[in-house]
Amino acid sequence: MIDPLVVEELIDRALAEDIGFADLTSELVIPAAARAELALNARQDIVVAGIDVAAQVFRRRVPECRVELRVKDGDRVNAGTAMGRVEGPARGLLAVERTALNFLQHLSGVATLTAQYVERIAGTRAVLIDTRKTTPGLRALEKHAAQLGGARNHRLRLDDGVLIKDNHISVCGSIALAVKRARSGVPVLTKIEVECDTLEQVTEALEAGADMILLDNMSLEDLRRAVALSGGRVPLEASGGVRLETLRAVAETGVDFISVGRITQSAPAADIGLDAVVRT
Amino acid sequence: MIDPLVVEELIDRALAEDIGFADLTSELVIPAAARAELALNARQDIVVAGIDVAAQVFRRRVPECRVELRVKDGDRVNAGTAMGRVEGPARGLLAVERTALNFLQHLSGVATLTAQYVERIAGTRAVLIDTRKTTPGLRALEKHAAQLGGARNHRLRLDDGVLIKDNHISVCGSIALAVKRARSGVPVLTKIEVECDTLEQVTEALEAGADMILLDNMSLEDLRRAVALSGGRVPLEASGGVRLETLRAVAETGVDFISVGRITQSAPAADIGLDAVVRT
Amino acid sequence: MIDPLVVEELIDRALAEDIGFADLTSELVIPAAARAELALNARQDIVVAGIDVAAQVFRRRVPECRVELRVKDGDRVNAGTAMGRVEGPARGLLAVERTALNFLQHLSGVATLTAQYVERIAGTRAVLIDTRKTTPGLRALEKHAAQLGGARNHRLRLDDGVLIKDNHISVCGSIALAVKRARSGVPVLTKIEVECDTLEQVTEALEAGADMILLDNMSLEDLRRAVALSGGRVPLEASGGVRLETLRAVAETGVDFISVGRITQSAPAADIGLDAVVRT
Amino acid sequence: MIDPLVVEELIDRALAEDIGFADLTSELVIPAAARAELALNARQDIVVAGIDVAAQVFRRRVPECRVELRVKDGDRVNAGTAMGRVEGPARGLLAVERTALNFLQHLSGVATLTAQYVERIAGTRAVLIDTRKTTPGLRALEKHAAQLGGARNHRLRLDDGVLIKDNHISVCGSIALAVKRARSGVPVLTKIEVECDTLEQVTEALEAGADMILLDNMSLEDLRRAVALSGGRVPLEASGGVRLETLRAVAETGVDFISVGRITQSAPAADIGLDAVVRT
Amino acid sequence: MIDPLVVEELIDRALAEDIGFADLTSELVIPAAARAELALNARQDIVVAGIDVAAQVFRRRVPECRVELRVKDGDRVNAGTAMGRVEGPARGLLAVERTALNFLQHLSGVATLTAQYVERIAGTRAVLIDTRKTTPGLRALEKHAAQLGGARNHRLRLDDGVLIKDNHISVCGSIALAVKRARSGVPVLTKIEVECDTLEQVTEALEAGADMILLDNMSLEDLRRAVALSGGRVPLEASGGVRLETLRAVAETGVDFISVGRITQSAPAADIGLDAVVRT
Amino acid sequence: MIDPLVVEELIDRALAEDIGFADLTSELVIPAAARAELALNARQDIVVAGIDVAAQVFRRRVPECRVELRVKDGDRVNAGTAMGRVEGPARGLLAVERTALNFLQHLSGVATLTAQYVERIAGTRAVLIDTRKTTPGLRALEKHAAQLGGARNHRLRLDDGVLIKDNHISVCGSIALAVKRARSGVPVLTKIEVECDTLEQVTEALEAGADMILLDNMSLEDLRRAVALSGGRVPLEASGGVRLETLRAVAETGVDFISVGRITQSAPAADIGLDAVVRT
Repeated sequence: MIDPLVVEELIDRALAEDIGFADLTSELVIPAAARAELALNARQDIVVAGIDVAAQVFRRRVPECRVELRVKDGDRVNAGTAMGRVEGPARGLLAVERTALNFLQHLSGVATLTAQYVERIAGTRAVLIDTRKTTPGLRALEKHAAQLGGARNHRLRLDDGVLIKDNHISVCGSIALAVKRARSGVPVLTKIEVECDTLEQVTEALEAGADMILLDNMSLEDLRRAVALSGGRVPLEASGGVRLETLRAVAETGVDFISVGRITQSAPAADIGLDAVVRT
Repeated sequence: MIDPLVVEELIDRALAEDIGFADLTSELVIPAAARAELALNARQDIVVAGIDVAAQVFRRRVPECRVELRVKDGDRVNAGTAMGRVEGPARGLLAVERTALNFLQHLSGVATLTAQYVERIAGTRAVLIDTRKTTPGLRALEKHAAQLGGARNHRLRLDDGVLIKDNHISVCGSIALAVKRARSGVPVLTKIEVECDTLEQVTEALEAGADMILLDNMSLEDLRRAVALSGGRVPLEASGGVRLETLRAVAETGVDFISVGRITQSAPAADIGLDAVVRT
Repeated sequence: MIDPLVVEELIDRALAEDIGFADLTSELVIPAAARAELALNARQDIVVAGIDVAAQVFRRRVPECRVELRVKDGDRVNAGTAMGRVEGPARGLLAVERTALNFLQHLSGVATLTAQYVERIAGTRAVLIDTRKTTPGLRALEKHAAQLGGARNHRLRLDDGVLIKDNHISVCGSIALAVKRARSGVPVLTKIEVECDTLEQVTEALEAGADMILLDNMSLEDLRRAVALSGGRVPLEASGGVRLETLRAVAETGVDFISVGRITQSAPAADIGLDAVVRT
Repeated sequence: MIDPLVVEELIDRALAEDIGFADLTSELVIPAAARAELALNARQDIVVAGIDVAAQVFRRRVPECRVELRVKDGDRVNAGTAMGRVEGPARGLLAVERTALNFLQHLSGVATLTAQYVERIAGTRAVLIDTRKTTPGLRALEKHAAQLGGARNHRLRLDDGVLIKDNHISVCGSIALAVKRARSGVPVLTKIEVECDTLEQVTEALEAGADMILLDNMSLEDLRRAVALSGGRVPLEASGGVRLETLRAVAETGVDFISVGRITQSAPAADIGLDAVVRT
Repeated sequence: MIDPLVVEELIDRALAEDIGFADLTSELVIPAAARAELALNARQDIVVAGIDVAAQVFRRRVPECRVELRVKDGDRVNAGTAMGRVEGPARGLLAVERTALNFLQHLSGVATLTAQYVERIAGTRAVLIDTRKTTPGLRALEKHAAQLGGARNHRLRLDDGVLIKDNHISVCGSIALAVKRARSGVPVLTKIEVECDTLEQVTEALEAGADMILLDNMSLEDLRRAVALSGGRVPLEASGGVRLETLRAVAETGVDFISVGRITQSAPAADIGLDAVVRT
Repeated sequence: MIDPLVVEELIDRALAEDIGFADLTSELVIPAAARAELALNARQDIVVAGIDVAAQVFRRRVPECRVELRVKDGDRVNAGTAMGRVEGPARGLLAVERTALNFLQHLSGVATLTAQYVERIAGTRAVLIDTRKTTPGLRALEKHAAQLGGARNHRLRLDDGVLIKDNHISVCGSIALAVKRARSGVPVLTKIEVECDTLEQVTEALEAGADMILLDNMSLEDLRRAVALSGGRVPLEASGGVRLETLRAVAETGVDFISVGRITQSAPAADIGLDAVVRT
């Protein structure tokens, strides 16, 4: 779970941009004493992600509200499932319902799409992983949603993993030198991965002591050869333009990881409804 | 265009979450004096959005870099189009290229999807409008991207437009009272819209002096009747579950606006490549 | 009411600038266990504004304090009225009393001055409105205080209302073109107002479809003619150098709104006392 | 002068609250290439304060603009004086002119009102000083404006000066003990002032080694006696309800300082005009 | 005590930099329902500082935890002393224990080192004072820790005390002029200190009306002469390269204050252990 | 190098806490046009760290100043070395010199102390590593300084490395289960380390597939046995109470890493002088 203080900051910014000075309509039209009861309902099959964030949105702005969750992050629920209820002062709850829902729909969308990819490679040794292709500002939450959908994270940001790409290599002159330079300065709990375009590079990277190898845009044939070359010495990641249709074939080459940017970058919002009843 | 100081804050947060303490790989592997040249290329037909933001990302972190844009926000460009180049210190540019691209791909995705919707209703009087269903933290940019795709904005946030919904009405007891309360306190340059589920409500809303009416989930038949009822007195907005397939039929009922949450909430990232060359 | 999270941020900044590292005097001189009871008293006739903000100041820094308010925002109270009491740990309450009072006196000052202007035009159709001439940092609160004093807000900021001024017109070449450009990009719930210096411009603005017209520095005679010209088609705002003495005459020309910068920009602080008793 | 990084933060907040996502009108109506020239003109006699802040507002948002100031902070200028010009991109300058002017008018208002008070006591030994009765968020700037108007600052905040008031004394049991406690923990460059309601207390405070004494709400007669009692040993401050009319009489009692909250709390905005010309 | 809102901000930054997105280990390995009990134990003789900050760290991130402190800031405790216990949800407490301890060990280190210096000058009239040589970001807390160790603070920052140094003097041409300029603009509760390198300067400073004199890097002999020169008129501060070994000799010259940068700048962390027990 | 935007934020906070509203002395005493030249000089043998940060401090607040560095981060310089010069407006440079120096002295202190430890183990296979025992707020900079002194970083924070400690193990029931849980959720570029108190645990950890093993407080004998047990399969870290005196013996056991909290937590400030000359 993402740390609550990290999430609070994201919530505060989201509320600030959506509310501005005040929820004009509710402040003007609804009596201060009115109460509201909100119900969250899944309108499609989803993998739940962000239900804790949504709850935190309500509690942050309306500390006195009661939140009752009937599902939890990571649950797979069917269309029609009652996901939870929130009860409290109407003005406050109506002011934040859209923000709560925006988080929940977006993150459940990521988790749900991820799960579709993960399902495709069930039974293979390959594990789906995410990338740094995330929506600016939502890295932590989207990475967590991808996990809830069954993927693993690749790295969280630029300082917790080394990925030596073609440009790094060409500037250094060799994979060996690039790995050596990286090794000298990287935290000892951080791994070094090398991006390879060819099988020759794979051999070089293995010799250079890379902790992991990214096989960039290789054909299925080359992926298989790379798997053979490595012989299980280091984990191999297939990357580059993998789509839902081609995913299983890639997995069946024997690679350890397949990275897909689309799960965090192009997930449609999950269809989740919020029904409100307000009483004076 | 979104104000540059607003954008700078978004950029700073996006860089902070992606970089952490430092771009470990580039700092360790690339000599401080190395230069990079990056090229942005459209890999699909897109409506450009966020190219200014991407340029600002590069300039914010690497003030001495040179940015040359060959397209501008709002341009429709074909797959293969060279969109721009950036030249400067390699370490800095590589540290931020992903963040620049994340903004550009996401926002161009929104503009491109929006344009597809807009195209469907060409020739009708209906105008596509967006909603508050946006990605938390990116409201301003996504609203701008929707505009670049040909939509208009509905409202920016809760304090710059009044939208009286069913709950507001039921608490007040009548549309008339809800509008009256809203009118008494709303800034004089802000309009009041009333959500109506039935034609009776449309009549009530017209009598109550609403500035605009939202027709919620109405059948095509009812939309047509509402258009007739209103007789052009106030703009009418059709809303609720409108999809690309049903869009034109809705537009042909004669409504003034059609709101679609999907354009900001579910747009897949545009396929834009960034190719880098690094030289020592 | 302004959103509590917006207010909390203003309070935090105000406390930070007034306290610095600590309230040296109270920390050094008053025992940690001492309790204080503070009483807020009106020392002049006022329209109350900011009493909720003041209460929030106390609660923010001293969560365990008890606040009892005897008046509420918008109340008109006479000199001598007991406005409320706060009881709690002495060190904390003394550290923030000045900040609480600074908010309350300033905002009640704005509301009270506004009410004096509003009173002058009682019985006319004219409504007093505020402007963007506010104290930097306090826009939201001052706009709210103006409302409590009986005015309505014009617009909250530059993105929730369009006001086309002489410069915008001269650059476009015509009011018609300026309105057309604005209409194409403005959110659909936001109105477009045009500033007119002459009756010819009023005619142009009406034809261009302006939603509202600002009559800038016009004579009473011209104001009357503009009212006749418009014939109630759009609301008219009189603006420019209106003072308490000339207000009623302007109102009697038949305009809908009169804007006055002075109510937010030049309101003297309301005289409200805070009497404290500290007990060990 | 207030530190530029402190001022930048105030400017950023002021711009954020006034602009929101963008200056809609200028972005929509004015071509990107248009230039503007703004002229600042005094419309009343003023003591200038905030002209540097206004210049920094323009430069912060429009770094490429040219600012030419013809007056500087502290100058006394007559109605009609041309205070400065700004030239640059029209959209950016129009977006911030109101904020620049809000700072300038408010701060010049404070300096101008302060100067009126200061003038009244010319030729006496008394020096006007300010208080902590400032507008929340603007402490630093208002204190500086008061100085430009000829006052001196009392203390900047609660951690740079000790002021022992009646409550502190009553809790301690004696002025002597209160001063002793304060002395033991106060930074060595910070003075300790004691508020006295009676001449007996003045004697006590002198004996206790107070660095300065505040004479609270004393009659002119008692002020004179206090001056005699002190015999110049420590500076004396007269405080409490001093108005422009009574100021000189208080000064003539021989006190060293007279504090007036009104100069920062109730200063009307100075009348300064900003005339803009926009050219395509 | 430093104001809790000031401390909260420091805590939030410290937690953000140590936690990042989440405490990966605890989130993955420890069940959500597990409880932890932490015990803080002194492993050396220390002067306690920061125990309140540590408690605030736990409460900030884990509001439902129970904190029981057995010592308080300023206490002198022996190695082996049980300082306090914290009980609550294991994941949250383990995520913040290091940050709590980092504050406590650092601040107790400052207080403990300070106390060693203070002890050396027991029985003399000299008082140890701190400097602006503090760790960036921790000024308030380190100054407070120095006080807990028995020192007094010199000034908190650049705006709450005037210290005229050699460069200020040489630019002005004389101490007299420098003091005069400073006096004209300094808040009335703030003292003016003059740095003197020679006895001639001391005489000048006394004549110029300095409130305090810093004797910079003077020999013991000159310090004694300065004390004689001043004759108790203003406090004298000895400064410059004073070490634990030379401290007492300096104190015995009769100066009022001795400033030492080392106490805040070079204090080794106090040895305080945190033992945790986790239960499912 | 730490990312410049990260450093800028640290600098802004450090300046804010040291300057407050303004550098009173310089603003009052030094003419606005005066220039200063500052020289940084090593007064002891040091490993330079923070010279870039110091330069950034000057440039941040005084953009027009000229900074000339003669040493760079990581350089080992002798007492007496001229490290660099800064020339520019006197008021601005004097306002920030203390903050620049506070960063430089602290960070060079960390690097210099680290180098002393590193030197002790020269010629062994052991590498010195740091810990999370850093000064709150300065994690990034201190970790970088430790690297400049010749150490490597362990992990940067809680989300970029997994360290399974005794409590994690006892809650899980076995090392195997703890590692399995961690492996399932950790980013694929992040390593998992297990803390072992006994040789039995070392065997367990090896079998569980730990990426690295921390040998906690083991005797030299047990360290040697652990090295033999592991046989080079995974890196071994010796930790717990290692001091300068015992360091080499630990290194000679054959462990790969030795972690020492003291290098970041207890480093005395390096003695670096800043000499200023001011000219009108």
